[in-house]
Amino acid sequence: MAQQEIERKFLVKGDYKRFVSKETKIVQGFLCTVPERTVRVRIKGDKGFLTIKGIGNESGTSRYEFEKEIAVADAKDLMKICEPGVIDKTRYIVKANNELFFEVDEFYGENEGLTIAELELPSEDTAFEKPTWLGEEVTGDVRYFNAMLMKNPYKNWD
Amino acid sequence: MAQQEIERKFLVKGDYKRFVSKETKIVQGFLCTVPERTVRVRIKGDKGFLTIKGIGNESGTSRYEFEKEIAVADAKDLMKICEPGVIDKTRYIVKANNELFFEVDEFYGENEGLTIAELELPSEDTAFEKPTWLGEEVTGDVRYFNAMLMKNPYKNWD
Repeated sequence: MAQQEIERKFLVKGDYKRFVSKETKIVQGFLCTVPERTVRVRIKGDKGFLTIKGIGNESGTSRYEFEKEIAVADAKDLMKICEPGVIDKTRYIVKANNELFFEVDEFYGENEGLTIAELELPSEDTAFEKPTWLGEEVTGDVRYFNAMLMKNPYKNWD
Repeated sequence: MAQQEIERKFLVKGDYKRFVSKETKIVQGFLCTVPERTVRVRIKGDKGFLTIKGIGNESGTSRYEFEKEIAVADAKDLMKICEPGVIDKTRYIVKANNELFFEVDEFYGENEGLTIAELELPSEDTAFEKPTWLGEEVTGDVRYFNAMLMKNPYKNWD
């Protein structure tokens, strides 16, 4: 049985930066974003990656994923032939309780001004303490998907 | 200045198999075939490859290409999420004159019955001896492009 991961997504309303344990610069683009498969090029810190994902199964619990590390120079070249709308962000790791961590993404470029916090939970009923800097929950809101932020960036929202 | 490679393509009308110096099984599929970029998965002999090509420049003489060897098991998994119409063929290397080699592709599956010989020439006026087994020239005929043979395979031709 595939394990279902629960991911909850929130806006950020306060200062989380003094709780940050790690930060990584991420730049990513997509070579392919059809419903059946995506091909992503990513530079994460000082490493390059190519990630290919297939369509999920009917219940959405599992999705084929292939990831291969590539040279940063190759990732930069591949970024040039990606679909328009490269995503540029810093990912901050912020400790929550119970061995859990928030991934807080601060966006730049066309998505400047947007910061999203994500929390992966082992199950839907896992309790966690809401830190004071955590804002409105936006889990499931498609506008905040990375693929959507490329096509309709935050700067264009009303 | 980028070097332009001249590729001439021919049908095959006679027995070339006794001149073969090497043969390799090739299975390939595409994750993406838009005009701006292609992402190809290939199993060639006992090796797997992922090949990404960008759009050509205006004169068509150069095209960005990235190739990375991957595990055959990964290539097989990726093949499952490719666009419909995987290409299955054996590539035979047949010596021509002047250090030149024909690549003769014998197709299977939906393209069973089709055999194409390709010759790469350093320039348009390079002379070469036409072997007796070489048939009609089909250079530039889009029906014989691999991407077209996926979408409209030989078995469907009139």
